[in-house]
Amino acid sequence: MNYPTGIKRNNNQIINYSHRGMNLEDDINQTNTYYREKNIAYIYKKPTPIKVTKVDFKKNRTSIIKEAFYMEPSTTDYNGIYKGYYIDFEAKETKNKSSFPLANIHKHQIKHLENITNHGGIGFLIVRFSTLNKTYLLKAKDLFSFIKNDKRKSIPIRIFESKGKLIKENYNPRLDYLKVVNEFLEVKQNDKKEK
Amino acid sequence: MNYPTGIKRNNNQIINYSHRGMNLEDDINQTNTYYREKNIAYIYKKPTPIKVTKVDFKKNRTSIIKEAFYMEPSTTDYNGIYKGYYIDFEAKETKNKSSFPLANIHKHQIKHLENITNHGGIGFLIVRFSTLNKTYLLKAKDLFSFIKNDKRKSIPIRIFESKGKLIKENYNPRLDYLKVVNEFLEVKQNDKKEK
Repeated sequence: MNYPTGIKRNNNQIINYSHRGMNLEDDINQTNTYYREKNIAYIYKKPTPIKVTKVDFKKNRTSIIKEAFYMEPSTTDYNGIYKGYYIDFEAKETKNKSSFPLANIHKHQIKHLENITNHGGIGFLIVRFSTLNKTYLLKAKDLFSFIKNDKRKSIPIRIFESKGKLIKENYNPRLDYLKVVNEFLEVKQNDKKEK
Repeated sequence: MNYPTGIKRNNNQIINYSHRGMNLEDDINQTNTYYREKNIAYIYKKPTPIKVTKVDFKKNRTSIIKEAFYMEPSTTDYNGIYKGYYIDFEAKETKNKSSFPLANIHKHQIKHLENITNHGGIGFLIVRFSTLNKTYLLKAKDLFSFIKNDKRKSIPIRIFESKGKLIKENYNPRLDYLKVVNEFLEVKQNDKKEK
């Protein structure tokens, strides 16, 4: 890792960054904020779908929800725009050291990634092997071909190592996944030129 | 309107469609479902952002939320992909007969539409004048130029009539707004050819 495990702030408060990478969602949200602030891309996490069943209605938008339930998401968690392309991905963490269990992704989320890639969108998975402290980006296309050709219910880490790309962790942005997307776009554009 | 106000179903139940067009959100959701089923476009409404403050945790995803609050959305309500383009829009109803009050859209939603159009996305507003039973699509570009050049806090309906496009209501899809988007795309592609 190329960042210090503790840095000293002006107010003399020691901030420990050794646990910084533990929460993938936080890292992606911080990265997306960075992309927006730098006018690089506009990618957001979708809110968690919640079914509200009881509300205490009040004026001025201060209504209190008294009963509600978490629902299954119908799409992936993140989408947005980058360089004119529609971007769509799901992010997952696993404590498993050797493979990523497919049970972590809903079937309709895989179907959603298929639909959007068929329509010209850029779809992928970001998977963090938290015990190894390694985060990979795997293109949706490689996910589909694994599911189609392999009967295993987990994707071995060597698939991520060979077909995917390791996303480097940094201070800011924490997880520069668009750098990896850039490499894919270059390949895509070169393919077009060759045709 | 070109659909009957009541149709008879097989089970002899009379369904009254005269109020069908009253809820814009339902019409758009039904239309988006139609687009997905026909493999035309993948556009979804984002879930309403809710801040959960108390949860009764249970196993098997049946946790009950005991206290939560509605939050302000940071983006528009709808986004997705169509013909490789990133699509993004906000939909609003007004009972006003002569103009659409800009107070109905948050400033950060307008800023969001600006950001995504600058990056090659297709952004627009869908506004229903419910008393008149007319629904218009107004391109984000025309929204920005109104805000920039006009000091009024409401967009007069004649702007929607002249700059926007009336979306025809039908049985299925109820509100074929991509038909209007197609017209814009043709203009965009012709512009490119002329360059």
